[in-house]
Amino acid sequence: MSDNLVMQLLGRRLRLALIGGGPGSFIGATHRQAARLDDRFEFVGAALSSRPDACRAAGQSLGLPADRCYPDGATLIAQEAQRPDGAEVVAIMTPNDSHYHFSMLALDHGMDVICDKPMTNTLDEALALHAKVQHSGRVFCLTHNYSGYPMVRQAKALVMAGRLGEIRLVQVEYVQGGRAKPGPVRKPWKDDPDRSGPSLVMGDIGTHAHQLLRFITGLEVAQVAAHVGTSVPERTAHDYGGALLQMTNGARGSFWVTQAAAGVENGLRVRISGSLGSLEWHQEHPQVLHFKSLDAPAQVYTPNGPGTLPLAARASRIVAGHPEGFHEAFANVYKDAADTIAAIRSATAPDPLAQYFPNATDGLQGLRFIAATLRSNANHSTWTEV
Amino acid sequence: MSDNLVMQLLGRRLRLALIGGGPGSFIGATHRQAARLDDRFEFVGAALSSRPDACRAAGQSLGLPADRCYPDGATLIAQEAQRPDGAEVVAIMTPNDSHYHFSMLALDHGMDVICDKPMTNTLDEALALHAKVQHSGRVFCLTHNYSGYPMVRQAKALVMAGRLGEIRLVQVEYVQGGRAKPGPVRKPWKDDPDRSGPSLVMGDIGTHAHQLLRFITGLEVAQVAAHVGTSVPERTAHDYGGALLQMTNGARGSFWVTQAAAGVENGLRVRISGSLGSLEWHQEHPQVLHFKSLDAPAQVYTPNGPGTLPLAARASRIVAGHPEGFHEAFANVYKDAADTIAAIRSATAPDPLAQYFPNATDGLQGLRFIAATLRSNANHSTWTEV
Amino acid sequence: MSDNLVMQLLGRRLRLALIGGGPGSFIGATHRQAARLDDRFEFVGAALSSRPDACRAAGQSLGLPADRCYPDGATLIAQEAQRPDGAEVVAIMTPNDSHYHFSMLALDHGMDVICDKPMTNTLDEALALHAKVQHSGRVFCLTHNYSGYPMVRQAKALVMAGRLGEIRLVQVEYVQGGRAKPGPVRKPWKDDPDRSGPSLVMGDIGTHAHQLLRFITGLEVAQVAAHVGTSVPERTAHDYGGALLQMTNGARGSFWVTQAAAGVENGLRVRISGSLGSLEWHQEHPQVLHFKSLDAPAQVYTPNGPGTLPLAARASRIVAGHPEGFHEAFANVYKDAADTIAAIRSATAPDPLAQYFPNATDGLQGLRFIAATLRSNANHSTWTEV
Amino acid sequence: MSDNLVMQLLGRRLRLALIGGGPGSFIGATHRQAARLDDRFEFVGAALSSRPDACRAAGQSLGLPADRCYPDGATLIAQEAQRPDGAEVVAIMTPNDSHYHFSMLALDHGMDVICDKPMTNTLDEALALHAKVQHSGRVFCLTHNYSGYPMVRQAKALVMAGRLGEIRLVQVEYVQGGRAKPGPVRKPWKDDPDRSGPSLVMGDIGTHAHQLLRFITGLEVAQVAAHVGTSVPERTAHDYGGALLQMTNGARGSFWVTQAAAGVENGLRVRISGSLGSLEWHQEHPQVLHFKSLDAPAQVYTPNGPGTLPLAARASRIVAGHPEGFHEAFANVYKDAADTIAAIRSATAPDPLAQYFPNATDGLQGLRFIAATLRSNANHSTWTEV
Repeated sequence: MSDNLVMQLLGRRLRLALIGGGPGSFIGATHRQAARLDDRFEFVGAALSSRPDACRAAGQSLGLPADRCYPDGATLIAQEAQRPDGAEVVAIMTPNDSHYHFSMLALDHGMDVICDKPMTNTLDEALALHAKVQHSGRVFCLTHNYSGYPMVRQAKALVMAGRLGEIRLVQVEYVQGGRAKPGPVRKPWKDDPDRSGPSLVMGDIGTHAHQLLRFITGLEVAQVAAHVGTSVPERTAHDYGGALLQMTNGARGSFWVTQAAAGVENGLRVRISGSLGSLEWHQEHPQVLHFKSLDAPAQVYTPNGPGTLPLAARASRIVAGHPEGFHEAFANVYKDAADTIAAIRSATAPDPLAQYFPNATDGLQGLRFIAATLRSNANHSTWTEV
Repeated sequence: MSDNLVMQLLGRRLRLALIGGGPGSFIGATHRQAARLDDRFEFVGAALSSRPDACRAAGQSLGLPADRCYPDGATLIAQEAQRPDGAEVVAIMTPNDSHYHFSMLALDHGMDVICDKPMTNTLDEALALHAKVQHSGRVFCLTHNYSGYPMVRQAKALVMAGRLGEIRLVQVEYVQGGRAKPGPVRKPWKDDPDRSGPSLVMGDIGTHAHQLLRFITGLEVAQVAAHVGTSVPERTAHDYGGALLQMTNGARGSFWVTQAAAGVENGLRVRISGSLGSLEWHQEHPQVLHFKSLDAPAQVYTPNGPGTLPLAARASRIVAGHPEGFHEAFANVYKDAADTIAAIRSATAPDPLAQYFPNATDGLQGLRFIAATLRSNANHSTWTEV
Repeated sequence: MSDNLVMQLLGRRLRLALIGGGPGSFIGATHRQAARLDDRFEFVGAALSSRPDACRAAGQSLGLPADRCYPDGATLIAQEAQRPDGAEVVAIMTPNDSHYHFSMLALDHGMDVICDKPMTNTLDEALALHAKVQHSGRVFCLTHNYSGYPMVRQAKALVMAGRLGEIRLVQVEYVQGGRAKPGPVRKPWKDDPDRSGPSLVMGDIGTHAHQLLRFITGLEVAQVAAHVGTSVPERTAHDYGGALLQMTNGARGSFWVTQAAAGVENGLRVRISGSLGSLEWHQEHPQVLHFKSLDAPAQVYTPNGPGTLPLAARASRIVAGHPEGFHEAFANVYKDAADTIAAIRSATAPDPLAQYFPNATDGLQGLRFIAATLRSNANHSTWTEV
Repeated sequence: MSDNLVMQLLGRRLRLALIGGGPGSFIGATHRQAARLDDRFEFVGAALSSRPDACRAAGQSLGLPADRCYPDGATLIAQEAQRPDGAEVVAIMTPNDSHYHFSMLALDHGMDVICDKPMTNTLDEALALHAKVQHSGRVFCLTHNYSGYPMVRQAKALVMAGRLGEIRLVQVEYVQGGRAKPGPVRKPWKDDPDRSGPSLVMGDIGTHAHQLLRFITGLEVAQVAAHVGTSVPERTAHDYGGALLQMTNGARGSFWVTQAAAGVENGLRVRISGSLGSLEWHQEHPQVLHFKSLDAPAQVYTPNGPGTLPLAARASRIVAGHPEGFHEAFANVYKDAADTIAAIRSATAPDPLAQYFPNATDGLQGLRFIAATLRSNANHSTWTEV
C-alpha cells in the first residue's frame, strides 16, 4: 500500500492529460495502461485524435467530462494550464512530426512531459528541445519502454557492478516482420518521411536498439559505418539498417534492425561481452537474462530471483516466476517518471533508483545516431562520427 | 477507446469494494492492478486488513475517503449495500477460511463477487456457496487467473475446434520452491489448516492445476489415485501431491504439484495429447503454445500471431511479439467478469466469448477434487471417485 | 591418440560379434556406430537376422568374411568360442524374448556381453541372469544408453558431491508419440507380449526412465502406486504407464511414460529436487543441465563447460559448444564397457570412472520395477513394494 | 546394412591416409571419428605429427603397421601412391599454411582429398588449388562441417523449394569465447599469421559463417563493408570481424564473428528472411530449425520429423527425437565425399543428393571473402567487391 510514492508525497495522484493515441491506436492504449497500472496518475483531460470532431467521443469513452475533451493538443495545453486543477503532466503519443511542437509548448506552460519516441524528427529539433528541457527544470520522459524491463535493469546493474569487466564487444538487433508484406500499411503516415522522419526503421526501432545498448553499457556510440535502405519492393520508407559500431571506450559492435523479416514478431535482442563474461537478453522472452562467465557455469537471472540487484528489484511488482511483460516494462518508465515528478513538485529528494527512465539526452543521442548513420550511408558506409 | 464495454453499457465504471489484500499482501496488489488495467472498475470502498486499526490508513493510501475505509468485511458489505452509490461488486482476497463467509454475505446483499481461490476450505461450504450463486442471479468469479493467459485460451479453443482429435492423455504439474527452505514462512496462517484448508498445497496450487486441466480439455476428472504429504522436515502442511487421473472420457493422466522443489519458481505446465496431436504450455514462458502434430511440423502459437482463434485474440491487448504476463492474464479474468456483470446489470446479452472466466462450478469441482485426493491418500492411494 | 585404453592394454581392439540388428533395424545400426566411434572394437562375426538365409548377405555388407556370418546366435557363440581369434565380446540386439537365452549362452562360453534392454522379459529370467553374471566374472553391460549423456553423468556427479543436499522429490517422464497412430506398426513383434514382455511401454521406455532416475539419484524405488494400460483404440500392448513413487530414502515422486502422445518425439525428462536445489534434464536438448539453487541464480551446465565434474568430462570427446548426441551417449556406454573388459582381460585395475555403465543389477531392478507396477495396477493402484 | 554405398560399389572400404591431427589435436580426433562413424573408410597410413619422431607412436596407437606410419605428409603421399594397396584418399588436418602444399601433392598423385578449412592461407593459393582440382577429376572435399547438420540441409532444401520466396535479408554470426582470456593460447601457431593466415578469426570461423550463408541461400556475397581487428589486449591476431553484406540478388545482410566473447561457447547462428518467411538455426541447438511464416503459425522442423525434405533426411541416421550432433554433421561430409569418390572410382553415376559437401569452390569463395573484408577494412570500411 505504502509503495505509491506519489500518493505519499502529494496526497493525491498526478494530473495527467493525453495528446494523441485515439481510436485504433495501439500505442495510445499502451500508454494509458502503463499510466494506470501503478496508480500514480489521474487522467484529467485529453486531445486524443487529430480529427477535432473525434476528440470528444474518444475522451468521453475514457470517462472524461466534455469540457476537458479538447479538439487539439495546443488547446489542451493552453486551457489546462489555466485551470487550478489542470494537468501538471502531459503524455504525447502523436505521430512523430508533432512531438517537438507539443513538448515545447507543454514545457513552456510549466508541464512535465512524457513523450513517445523518437523525440523529434530532426537533429535540430532535438537539440532545441534538449536545451529547453535543461533550462525548464521540468521532467521530460521519453518512452524507450524496453529499458523498463526488470532484466534489462539487471543487465545495467551487473555492468555497473563490474561483473562484466571491461566491455569489449556489443551486438544489438531489432528484427520485426510487420512491414514484410507488400501493399498498404496500417498507418499510412509512417510512409511519409515528413511525418515519420528521414528513416522510418531507424526512428521506429533503431532508436530503441540504440538506447538499449547505451542504457546497459553506459557507453556512447562514437562512430558508425552504416547502411540503411528498403528491401520490400515498391516501398520507399527504409525497412532495414545495419551498422558497424565503435563505442567510446573502444569496444566494437554490430547493429542490425529491420521491419521486413517476414514472420518475425518483435526480436529486440542485445548481447554484451566484457573481459569477464557476456550478457544476453531477448525481448520475446524478457524474464530471463543469461550471464555467461569466463570461468564459471552460465547463470540465468530472473525477475526477483536470487541475485537480483536493487535497480532490477524495483522494476518487479511480484515474486519470482510470475512473468511481467511489455505493459509492466512500459509502466516502470511511467512510474519512475511519476515518482521523480512528484519529488520535484514536492521539493523532496528524488529516489536515485528512480532516475533511470529515458530522458531528453537519450532522445538527442538517438537523433545524433540516426543522422550519423544516414551520413555514413550516403558516403559508401565509411566510418562516420556520431 | 470503444473497447471498454462497461463504459459503453453503463456510462461509468463498475463500483468495486475490496476485502483483504492489505499491507504486505502480494495478492492484494495483484488484484488491484488487474482491476485497474482495463479501466472497468472504480474502487469505492475497502476493508483491507484483518486488523481494524490498519484498515483506514491502508484504504486512504489507495485514495479512498475515510468513511469508506471499513474496519472489516462484514461492515463494508452492510454499509455499502445501503448507499445509493455503493459498491455493486466486491473483491475478496482474504485468507481462505473467510472466502465462504464474505461471499455468502455479499451475494445476500445483491453484490457480484470476485473471489480468490480456493473458493472455500470445505466441500460442504463449496456446495452451499455454489447453490447460493445459482439462485442469486449474480456473477461469481473465482480468480483462477492462469486460465486468463492468451495461450491457455488458445489451447482451449484448439481443443474445442477439434484440432487435437479425441483426448487420450493429460499431464499437468505445478512445481514451486517457495516452501523448500525449512524454518518460518512469510504467511503463518498458511500453516494452520483451520485457515488454509485441509491440504495447503492442494488448495494453493493444486486447484490451479486442476482448473487449468479442466479448462483446456473441457473434461472432468472422474477418478484419482492420489498421494499427498509433506517433504520438508518439521513442517506439517502438505507440500506435495501426486495423482494418477482418469478423465470422464476415459483419458488417463498424471498430476504433480509441490511447493518444495528448491529453486523452482512457478512451474505450472500442462500437456494434452489427443489422437491428432499434442499441446504443451508452460507458465514461465506463457507467450508460446506448442502444438505437435501427428503428421505435420510442430507449430508454435503466439498471442495475436497467425492462427490465433477468437477466444485467444480477445485475451491480448497488443500486437504479436509484445509479451503480456501474469498481470494481464489476471486482468483478463477481471475484464470478462466485468463485461458480464455490466451486461447483466444493463439487461443486455453478455458476449459469449466473455463467459470463460472461472466461476462457482470451478470452485466446487476444485473442492471435490481435493476431497477425493485426500480420501484416496487415506486409503493406500487406491482409485477413488471424485 | 593415447586415449584408447583398449589399444594400450591389449595392443589391439576387442573382438566383437553381433547378434541381431540386421536389415531394417534401427537399433542395430545404432549399436554398430556406437561400437565404432571410439575405435575399441573390431567386428569379427555376426548373426544379424533371425532369418538364416539373410544372415550371410547382411554380414558381408559389413565386410565380414563368409565363414563368420552365422545363421543364428547360438551357432555364432559356439563357433566363435572355439576359434583362437574368436569373439571375446558379444553384442545382443535381438527382440526382447531372446536376450536371456543368448546372454546366458555367451556367459557360459566365457564371453563378455553387451545387451540391449530390457535385460529379460520376466523377473525369473532376470534373477537367473543376474546370478549368472555375478558368478561368471565377466562384464555384462546393458545399453541403458541415456545414462551415457555427459549432462546425465554431470547430474549424477552433482548429486554424489552433495550439491543437491538431501533428495526429497523426483519426477521422471518418458513421452513419445511413435505408437499414437492406430493401425499396423513397424515392428509387429512388439505387439506380441510373448516376445516384447508383459508391458510393452514399461519394457521399451519405462525401464529407461527408471534406470535414469536410479542412476542420477543413487536411490532405489521402494514402493509404487501404478497404473498401466492402452490408450489407442484397437491396440492391446500397453502404451502408457503412470506411477507415484516412494524412494528408499523417503523421497516422493512421479513417473509417467507413454508412446501414444501424438507428435511428441523422444521426451525423456528428469527432475530431481533436494534440500539445496533442483536439477532438470531433457533428452531432446541433452547438452544442457539446469541447476536451480535455493539461494543463488540458476546455473546452466554444458558438456566440458565451466564446472564440469570428472565423471561428465570423461563422457565428452570435444570442447564445449560442440553438441554430442544420442550416438555419443550410446558410445560412452560401449567405451566404458570396453575399457573395463580390457582391464579385466589384461588383469589391470579398471578405471573407477569407467564403472558407471549399466549392468545386470540395473536390468534386474528394472524387471522388479515392471513387476511391481503390474501388481499395483492389478490391485486398484494401491501401494506395492518393488 | 545395404546403406553403405561404398561397400556396395567397391566391395570394400576406401583406403584413407591421414596427415596431421596427432597427439593433443582436437580436430584430428574429430576427423577420425567422422571417418569411422559410417564405415566407409579404412585407415591405411598416417603422418600424424609435424615431429617425425612422434609420428610412429601416434600411428601405431591407431593400430597402423609401422611401415605405414610416415615421418611427414610428403613421404606419405609419395610412398602410398606407389603401393598397390595404397591410400586412394588423403585427409589433411594440419595447420593452415600446409593445406595448399599437401593438397596439391595429393592431387598430383591421383588421390582424392579431404581437407580442413580454410582451404589455403592466400587467395593466390586458393585460385591455384581450385584450378588444379577442376583439372584433376578428383574429389576435393573441404570440411565446412556445419553444412552437414540435418537442419542446415533442411534449410537449404526449403530455400531451394521456394518456401522462403525471394530472399531479402540475411544475418549470420559466429560468436565464440575461446580467445577471450588474455595470456598464452593452446595452439601458438594460431597467433602466427604466417601459419594461420592474414586474419585468424576470419580463417578460423569467418569462413564457416560465410560458407553456411552461401550454402543455405545459394547466393554469393557481392560486396562487403567490413571491419576486422583485435579486442583482447596484448593480442595481435584478429579476434572479431563485422561486415555489412550485399548479396548477388540484392539481398542485404549482417555478418558478425568473434572468438573473444567471454563465456560464449560455439554460437554459430544464421537467419534468412525471404518474402514468404524467415528461417533461424543455431548450432548450439542444432536439432531445431525454426520457420516463421508470413501468414501461418511458426513451424519447428526436427531431423526426420514431419516435413523433412530428402536432402535433410539423408543426413540423419536415426528416427526423430534422437539428437545427432557435431560428430554426425562432420561425418555427413565424410560420407557424402566417400559416396562420391566411390561412384567416380567405380564409374557409376554419383547420387545427386550426395553432391552437397563443401568443395574447392567453397574454399576459393572463402578466400575471396576474407580478402575483400581486409581490403574494405583497410579502406575505412567502404563497400568493396568480393
